[in-house]
Amino acid sequence: MVALLILWRDPCLPYSEERVGWKPSRRRRLSAVKADRDKQRTRIVGAAIRLAEEHGLDRVGLREVAEEVGLALGTLYKSFRNKDEILGAVVDRQMAAMREALGGPVPAGETAADRVHSFFERFTEVVARHPAFTRGMLGALSTGRGAVVKAILRSDVETSKMVIGAIRGVPAAEVDFERCGDDERETAFLLRQIWFASMIGWSVGLHPLDEVVAHIDIAARRFL
Amino acid sequence: MVALLILWRDPCLPYSEERVGWKPSRRRRLSAVKADRDKQRTRIVGAAIRLAEEHGLDRVGLREVAEEVGLALGTLYKSFRNKDEILGAVVDRQMAAMREALGGPVPAGETAADRVHSFFERFTEVVARHPAFTRGMLGALSTGRGAVVKAILRSDVETSKMVIGAIRGVPAAEVDFERCGDDERETAFLLRQIWFASMIGWSVGLHPLDEVVAHIDIAARRFL
Repeated sequence: MVALLILWRDPCLPYSEERVGWKPSRRRRLSAVKADRDKQRTRIVGAAIRLAEEHGLDRVGLREVAEEVGLALGTLYKSFRNKDEILGAVVDRQMAAMREALGGPVPAGETAADRVHSFFERFTEVVARHPAFTRGMLGALSTGRGAVVKAILRSDVETSKMVIGAIRGVPAAEVDFERCGDDERETAFLLRQIWFASMIGWSVGLHPLDEVVAHIDIAARRFL
Repeated sequence: MVALLILWRDPCLPYSEERVGWKPSRRRRLSAVKADRDKQRTRIVGAAIRLAEEHGLDRVGLREVAEEVGLALGTLYKSFRNKDEILGAVVDRQMAAMREALGGPVPAGETAADRVHSFFERFTEVVARHPAFTRGMLGALSTGRGAVVKAILRSDVETSKMVIGAIRGVPAAEVDFERCGDDERETAFLLRQIWFASMIGWSVGLHPLDEVVAHIDIAARRFL
């Protein structure tokens, strides 16, 4: 299992409603509808993060999100049937942003342990950018909210590729997960488990955020 | 951080209310009051576990526990101010029972990895004896319920001693934690973290309970 609770950097893209002066083709109209729907989903996800950061994830419901975005509740339902689906979408979009931010460049460091340190340092920093929201998501994950757990599962291989990329010193995009040996997969898995347990420790106030990466360092010394 | 959510084996000791025919000394009376209070706490803790197993931890409040034990709510308040305090007491008592069950004998196995396997197998089995309750406790822990987190913290050293005992092949009671080297402490810590993350994985339905110990085996092969 992994926990990937990456906070999406800029969830609230401007929503353009400008009128177009020409009559688009059916295909063009369909793709415009899709783009509009994507933008709306983006705004909804952004609103959920903001509200959760401000009031706590427990207090955020579909009604509050609809109000924050300025949508009728019925319209919101067309995109998300319940709060869990919104949270699942948050994880998916954060993962996409994380892939963009961390999937390309190789983390800094001479040794594998150094690069693993750099990777998890950045990863943790991004995840914990909105601390109250992240705590809420870790809680939602640990209490088994279906859509959150499924979204996290979807991101498992992707995170492992990033960790393996850091170990090898190559971009994550160049890692062919299917061809990785058991040894590399297991190392990535164990590091992710330790990271997750330490994130929970931070989340419930057992230790500061720095210690999460310190725990990874302890493990990296043993594994790598 | 650790997760020690051990389920106490026999929480519902019989509660004797027989009258005594002699007038005890003040000291005797005080110790009898203390014993009665201990028994009452035991019954309360047992009732909380039973109710949580049956209805889910979220649905168990002080009122339900008082009703199950047959106490007035006001009387229950004298022992526990809130639900979190009951949950903290559950962890403390479970730890005491775990110490008794696992602290004495050395776990079976020729190698350190074998003994660590035996220890975590038994540990996991005891912890997951009441699965619904355990899931609730893991959720309570991960969402930072204060008294649960504090009780878990109190049990940290004790669990580490058990793990180190298993590695060395000696009873946990013979392990002087203060004199353990960084290496042993770190190994115990990492194994506990991996165990905890995997327990969450089981708890939210990512994998069956067997895999928790399989994950420990993967780690033990690397560490030991």
